[in-house]
Amino acid sequence: MRRTIGVREIEDIALGAAVLGTGGGGDPYIGRLMAVQAIEDFGPVELVSLEEVDDDDWSVAIAMMGAPTVMVEKIPGGKEAEHAFRSIESFLGRPIRYLYSIEAGGINSTIPIALAAQLRMPMIDLDGMGRAFPEIQMVTHTLFGITATPFTMADEKGNSAVLSTVDNRWMETFARSIAVNMGATAHIAAYAASGRQQKEAAVRGTMTLAETIGRTIREARAAHVDVVARLCAVTQGQVIFQGKVVDVQRRTVAGFARGEAILEGIGVDAGSQMSIEFQNENLIARRDGNVKVSVPDLISMVEEETGEPITTEGLRYGFRVNVIGMPSHPHWRTPAGLAVVGPRYFGYDVDFVPVEA
Amino acid sequence: MRRTIGVREIEDIALGAAVLGTGGGGDPYIGRLMAVQAIEDFGPVELVSLEEVDDDDWSVAIAMMGAPTVMVEKIPGGKEAEHAFRSIESFLGRPIRYLYSIEAGGINSTIPIALAAQLRMPMIDLDGMGRAFPEIQMVTHTLFGITATPFTMADEKGNSAVLSTVDNRWMETFARSIAVNMGATAHIAAYAASGRQQKEAAVRGTMTLAETIGRTIREARAAHVDVVARLCAVTQGQVIFQGKVVDVQRRTVAGFARGEAILEGIGVDAGSQMSIEFQNENLIARRDGNVKVSVPDLISMVEEETGEPITTEGLRYGFRVNVIGMPSHPHWRTPAGLAVVGPRYFGYDVDFVPVEA
Repeated sequence: MRRTIGVREIEDIALGAAVLGTGGGGDPYIGRLMAVQAIEDFGPVELVSLEEVDDDDWSVAIAMMGAPTVMVEKIPGGKEAEHAFRSIESFLGRPIRYLYSIEAGGINSTIPIALAAQLRMPMIDLDGMGRAFPEIQMVTHTLFGITATPFTMADEKGNSAVLSTVDNRWMETFARSIAVNMGATAHIAAYAASGRQQKEAAVRGTMTLAETIGRTIREARAAHVDVVARLCAVTQGQVIFQGKVVDVQRRTVAGFARGEAILEGIGVDAGSQMSIEFQNENLIARRDGNVKVSVPDLISMVEEETGEPITTEGLRYGFRVNVIGMPSHPHWRTPAGLAVVGPRYFGYDVDFVPVEA
Repeated sequence: MRRTIGVREIEDIALGAAVLGTGGGGDPYIGRLMAVQAIEDFGPVELVSLEEVDDDDWSVAIAMMGAPTVMVEKIPGGKEAEHAFRSIESFLGRPIRYLYSIEAGGINSTIPIALAAQLRMPMIDLDGMGRAFPEIQMVTHTLFGITATPFTMADEKGNSAVLSTVDNRWMETFARSIAVNMGATAHIAAYAASGRQQKEAAVRGTMTLAETIGRTIREARAAHVDVVARLCAVTQGQVIFQGKVVDVQRRTVAGFARGEAILEGIGVDAGSQMSIEFQNENLIARRDGNVKVSVPDLISMVEEETGEPITTEGLRYGFRVNVIGMPSHPHWRTPAGLAVVGPRYFGYDVDFVPVEA
C-alpha cells in the first residue's frame, strides 16, 4: 500500500518511535523538527510497503549515530545527510531507488524522512531492528549476510569518510571512532540492499507500527482513556513495573550514554524495586535483583498519566513511570539473533527469557 | 636525472633514512625487507628528479602510519599498500603517474619502493618532510595548501577507509583513530599532487640524500675512518653530545610511542647530562636543562663507533651514542612552518633556535 507521510504522520511516528526506542535511539524531538521542516519545504514523502518493491531495486539506510546525550546539544547543519547519501551513491555506482530507516526506534525513524523529502525519494516501510539498538552491527540485515559496507559518514564541518570492513562488527569499531572524532555524532548512509535482500532480512512495517503507536497514544489522551493499556494492546506489551525514579546514574563513555536507573515501586508494586541498565537503550530490567526483561525484548518507560515515553537522558528523580516490556521481532530470538543482541553480548551472564513467558 | 633503485640502493636508503628518521619513522628493517623482496620479484624501480616531472602529471604518497613500537611486531601482509593505492586511484578518478615517499626518514623511505616495484611505477626523488615527523599534517605540502584528501587506509585483515577532511589537521585526528582500530598500524595513500604542486611544496632530493647518507656510513666503516665526522659533513650536522644512555622511559599512547631518554656525558661532555624527549621522533634535546636543539631541526642518535642510527624503540641502557643536530629544510623554519612543527606545537614553551646558531 502506497501512502504519504505528512506532518501529522511525522508527529505520530516520532512519538511511537520514542516508545520503540526503549529509552535510547536519540531524542525524537530534533528528528521531528527536521522532518517537519523538510516536508513543509519539499512536500510529503511516499511510503511503500516492502511487497511493492522490485527484487532488483536498491535501497540505503540514512541515520545519525552517536551519543544521544550529545545529539540534544548539537543540532545538525542540514547538509550532512545529503553528503553521506551522495558519497554512498557514488561509491555504489548504481541507482538507489529508496531510502529506509535502519532503526525506527528514536530519532532515526524521522532522520531519513527529512532527506527523502529533500531528495524526493520514496521510503520503504521497514527497519533493521523493530526497535533501537546501540551498535552498528545490531540489525537483522547482519543475520542474513548483508554488509554495512560501503558505510559513509559526514559531519557538520564538511568532513566525511567511506569505510569498508570485513564484517559489520568491525564497522562498529571504525565508525564509532570516527563518530567520536566528529564530535560524538555523525550522519551515516549504509546497508545498501536489494529488494530481494530486504524481503528476507528486514523487519517489515516498523514505520507503520511507530505511527500506530503514536496515533494510539494521541487518541487515548484525547479520549481520556487509559493510555498505557491501549499502548500495551498495540505493542503486545505488558506493564512489568509501576514506580518512581529514585536514582539515575549516567555517563558518556566512548561515544555511548551508559548508566542505570533505580525505581521504587508504587501501587501494586509498592515495596519492590526495579533497576534498569542502559547503553543508549534500556538493556535489562531487574525486579528485586531478578531479571524481569532483557534484550532483545523491549523495555520502555512511559509517564503514568500521559503514556509519554521517557528517554534515558530525560529521566529525572521523582518521575512516576510505568515500565512496559514488549516482545522483539522473531529474527532476534533465534540463536543467531541472540548472539548479536542477546544479554550475553552485553555482558550479562543470563539466558534470554521472552517477556511473555 | 633518471636512475634506478636496486638492492644496493635500498640498503643505503634504509640506513640513511634511519638517520633522517631522528629516532622515529619506524624501524627501516621491515621496509627494507619488503622493498628488497619486491625488487627481486619485479625488478628495479625508476627514480626521477622533480625537474623531469611534467606539471600536469599526478603523484601520490604511499606510507605506513602508526606506532613504530607496534610495527616491529606486526609485519604487513603484502596487499595493504596496493589496496590503499587502488582506493585512492579510483577515488581520484585520474591517472597517477608516480609514487612518492611522504616521509623519507625511516620506514616510509622504502615502503613506496616496494609498491613501485610491484606496480612498475616510477618514483619521484622528494619527500614531504626531509626527515620524519609524527603527525599526518606535518608535511611541507600542508604549508602550500595541498590537501591530504582523499586519504585511503587499509589493514592486513581487508578493512579499508577513504577519508575526506576540511584540513590536514582533521585528517590526523580521523586517520589516527582508524590506525589504532586497525591494530596500531595501517597502510595509507594520500597527498595526491600535480607536478606543479610538488615543485612548489616538496622537499627535493630526499631519497638521494638518504642514499648518500647511507653510502657515506657504509664506505666510512669499510675504510675505517671517522664515521660520525663523515656523516656530519653530508648532513651539515654537528655532534651536540657524546654520552651513555642511563635511562629510557617509553609508553605507547593513542597510537604514538612517547618517552624520554637520559644520557650521561662522556669524553668532552663528561659531567653533563642530556635529556631527549620523543613522540615517535626525537623532539627536543636539553643539555643540563637548556634547550640545545629542537624541532623542526633534526636530532639523531648514532652509535659512537659505527655511526649506526638508533631508533627510540631500539634505545637501551648503556649504549654509547653521539647525538647529532642537523638543520631542517628552510620551509620548516618559516613562521608558517614553525606553526605546524615548531616546539610550541609539541607543547614546549620555547622559541626555535636553528642548530647552527
